[in-house]
Amino acid sequence: MKEALKEAKKALLTDDVPIGAVVVKDGVIIARAHNEKEKRNDATAHAEVLAIRKATKKLNNWWLEDVTIYVTLEPCAMCMGAMINSRIGRLVFGAWDAKGGCCGSVCDLNKDYKFNHKFETLGGVMQDECGKIITDFFKEKRKK
Amino acid sequence: MKEALKEAKKALLTDDVPIGAVVVKDGVIIARAHNEKEKRNDATAHAEVLAIRKATKKLNNWWLEDVTIYVTLEPCAMCMGAMINSRIGRLVFGAWDAKGGCCGSVCDLNKDYKFNHKFETLGGVMQDECGKIITDFFKEKRKK
Repeated sequence: MKEALKEAKKALLTDDVPIGAVVVKDGVIIARAHNEKEKRNDATAHAEVLAIRKATKKLNNWWLEDVTIYVTLEPCAMCMGAMINSRIGRLVFGAWDAKGGCCGSVCDLNKDYKFNHKFETLGGVMQDECGKIITDFFKEKRKK
Repeated sequence: MKEALKEAKKALLTDDVPIGAVVVKDGVIIARAHNEKEKRNDATAHAEVLAIRKATKKLNNWWLEDVTIYVTLEPCAMCMGAMINSRIGRLVFGAWDAKGGCCGSVCDLNKDYKFNHKFETLGGVMQDECGKIITDFFKEKRKK
């Protein structure tokens, strides 16, 4: 999660909400990404989607069953869907997202429905640090 | 929807499930895409995500409030999430997807929860044609 937080901080350079993700297989980080929505001007460019796409390319396989994705914020519907579609092995996330989180907050796409893949999840890991950089980001925004 | 079906047929060239999408603004098609999951070896490369990304690039704006997306199949969680994130104006889809559809079949992400965007939806448009090319594709697969 520390590595995902490092990624999150990179998003600040392009005025993007600081959210980061890393993908780990066999104890090794195989992909890193941060939110690039503003940088790319693309609402699908969330950290998780970009990290999954990189991992997929690295492994030359869209089936990510043996990997763990670490994300600093609870994933939205799109990102949870991307994890289901990619058959991700495990998700570990930092802060909870009461407004858009789809792994327990607004809903739990992994548990509430019978999609063709379910995966292990763990939320709230380093949630204070992961949440703080986001609230700090919005505090700064409001000052401007 | 006829144009989306044309797109869907292109997916057959790379042995991808034939699903197509077009994005329309002011009566003009601004983006077209088809499912490229197998071609790109990437489970996030659904027709809708690729079409949204192209539309976003074309308009140089991730906010797609005034556009309609036509898709041949009911969108999955990831694609519905991408539409919420992109503030899409309207969704029109063809066949229903009982196993993975998130616009009325398995769930309705647009209506069941309070996300920060809701949009108009219409399902079942040219559903026979849109569904048939998919069932034909799987029939052929099973023969092999």
